[in-house]
Amino acid sequence: MTWTLSQRAQKLTSSAIREILKVTERPEVISFAGGLPSPATFPVERIQEACNRILTSAPAPALQYGPTEGYLPLREWIANRHSAMGDRVSAAEVLVTTGSQQALDLLGKTLIDVGTRVLVETPTYLGALQAFSLSEPEFVSVPSDEAGPIPAELSAANPGNARLLYCLPNFQNPTGRRIPLDRRRELTRITSESNLLLVEDDPYGALSYGGDPLPTLHSMQPDTVVYLGSFSKILAPGLRVGYVIAPQTLHRKLVQAKQAADLHTPSFTQRIVHEVVKDDFLDAHIPQIRALYASQCDAMVAALSRHFPASVRWNRPAGGMFIWASLPAGMDSATLLQKAIECNIAFVPGAPFFANEPLHNTMRLSFVTVPPAKIEEGIARLGALIAAECST
Amino acid sequence: MTWTLSQRAQKLTSSAIREILKVTERPEVISFAGGLPSPATFPVERIQEACNRILTSAPAPALQYGPTEGYLPLREWIANRHSAMGDRVSAAEVLVTTGSQQALDLLGKTLIDVGTRVLVETPTYLGALQAFSLSEPEFVSVPSDEAGPIPAELSAANPGNARLLYCLPNFQNPTGRRIPLDRRRELTRITSESNLLLVEDDPYGALSYGGDPLPTLHSMQPDTVVYLGSFSKILAPGLRVGYVIAPQTLHRKLVQAKQAADLHTPSFTQRIVHEVVKDDFLDAHIPQIRALYASQCDAMVAALSRHFPASVRWNRPAGGMFIWASLPAGMDSATLLQKAIECNIAFVPGAPFFANEPLHNTMRLSFVTVPPAKIEEGIARLGALIAAECST
Repeated sequence: MTWTLSQRAQKLTSSAIREILKVTERPEVISFAGGLPSPATFPVERIQEACNRILTSAPAPALQYGPTEGYLPLREWIANRHSAMGDRVSAAEVLVTTGSQQALDLLGKTLIDVGTRVLVETPTYLGALQAFSLSEPEFVSVPSDEAGPIPAELSAANPGNARLLYCLPNFQNPTGRRIPLDRRRELTRITSESNLLLVEDDPYGALSYGGDPLPTLHSMQPDTVVYLGSFSKILAPGLRVGYVIAPQTLHRKLVQAKQAADLHTPSFTQRIVHEVVKDDFLDAHIPQIRALYASQCDAMVAALSRHFPASVRWNRPAGGMFIWASLPAGMDSATLLQKAIECNIAFVPGAPFFANEPLHNTMRLSFVTVPPAKIEEGIARLGALIAAECST
Repeated sequence: MTWTLSQRAQKLTSSAIREILKVTERPEVISFAGGLPSPATFPVERIQEACNRILTSAPAPALQYGPTEGYLPLREWIANRHSAMGDRVSAAEVLVTTGSQQALDLLGKTLIDVGTRVLVETPTYLGALQAFSLSEPEFVSVPSDEAGPIPAELSAANPGNARLLYCLPNFQNPTGRRIPLDRRRELTRITSESNLLLVEDDPYGALSYGGDPLPTLHSMQPDTVVYLGSFSKILAPGLRVGYVIAPQTLHRKLVQAKQAADLHTPSFTQRIVHEVVKDDFLDAHIPQIRALYASQCDAMVAALSRHFPASVRWNRPAGGMFIWASLPAGMDSATLLQKAIECNIAFVPGAPFFANEPLHNTMRLSFVTVPPAKIEEGIARLGALIAAECST
């Protein structure tokens, strides 16, 4: 039988990252490709205790269908946590999602028509491009620098004629960059004046290596910002629990779209997350993740300084999981990847993260899952490959 | 701020059923409205043992990101289980979904364009109408009788010009009807000859009260049938684990759509399901569910015979969770529901289950969660209300 696929399905392609990840599952590969948190940070015992408490004290509601909006005590905890950090949120605005990836899918469904203009950073998170693509928008890459989208460029992009601006303000995937405070103020001012919805995707916000976290965009303009949060990077991604905070009118539509998408996020995993986090556990846990990732980041930065040719540029992130490197102009990181995989090294080429004109000389390096000695060895081999390319 | 919603979001409405369920959460209400399985059937101890084994023996992969296709041992178990029942399936065809509701969402995304003709039973599962609606198809209700879609009517509905036929062959939600063997053969022959994809949604197939299960439509025409399965009715819906079996070309597109939708179904809940079912547990567990539901069904049928006016018609299902009743022509079950709720009785009006012209005199009665004495009491009160309506 020949299938007639929908037009959007005919355009679907698999994530380049996930295809690469399959290759890099071989144990001999030193992989800087994954976006996976370190399993050393998973609070296994605490999760096990939570499972046992839930299944002993109140198993039926944890195993039964539940409300589409999510488990109310978890929604209340999320609202309180935001409010305690100066971002006033009510539980009625919180929708629990099956990972924050699902929030991107629901936003695409509820906000994007074919040809709708959607503004994104340059580059931006590949998974958002995939989720939004199903609604066939016109992506507009707002020129960006090391501090995020450039305000004058945003103003020039006719924001009043777009449906949303999608932003990762903290330790962005893929670049690791953080939008500084003054830039946050400028961006929210422009989007608010343009009546443009700002989607703030913040899976890495808690992973700042030092200093206080910056105020969320949502706290600056709660009426025009939709906030996406996740427990994937601070507890465990395999639970697939995220959330979206949206004003009531949009919240209602997101709930309806979620009802059609999967009825609700698993009752059991929502209760596990709530049981684990409810007693200030994260206040002790998150600093441990930060310390681990900061030392891993230091190891990679040191290795890059030692082994990468001077013609390669990279950033030193202040948090998160990623470093973004730019090879000399004209060099293609996808070609480099082929050679790197032959040497049992993997990374993610940067091109798929660009909505419009890709920079083929860019690459994303994850530093959180590889032990420091292996980081040193992998970056040394990769540096030698790049140096060899430079000299040809 | 005024939101500009997508055109499809502007048409979205909340499920009538879920809105009613909110009203019926009051403990004094005898509710025949829910589609919830009985919590008495949840294998709590076994699930708790599974959690402890997983988190003791191999916690990291259970809490880490995983492949979009699903946990391979679970996919293999599903393929083997189907194959053992005469429905040859390979693990490569299986995609694990976040409940089978998600499979409906993914099928809508990959197969339906605006205006695509989608054939459905009369009536059909409301959640499928909701999921498909986001892709804005033209629904065509195939006239159906107590044995499902009528073959001559299917042939007359220009099936070659439609994208899919959506069917629940076993103990359909909402009617409880089962498609008999000869009708299954006719339907698969017609869809195959018309090059029409048949979507077989089968959450209740295991819940046959007696006799062998009938062969799946997928076993009859594996090349033109997509099969949707679920663990919600045989283990626990709060885990949200379902699956879709599709030929390779379509499977690949479903995987890509799922990647954008939620990356993957929770690694942990997939492993819980596998750990619980892997040792033939279901062979002892499912007969217990069947026996419970059969006795509940008997209680409701007996109560209906005693208390409903002779002018009301209903079926005696051979499995599943639902009875479908038709009030005298001209009576509106939505109006009856208002009065019933005043008497602390709830059910689901039938109209939302019709894709095109609703029969307003129909209603769905769930018999699995209310104890027999309460079934007797609730049906008696409802019967009296109907009798009073008949006499006005």
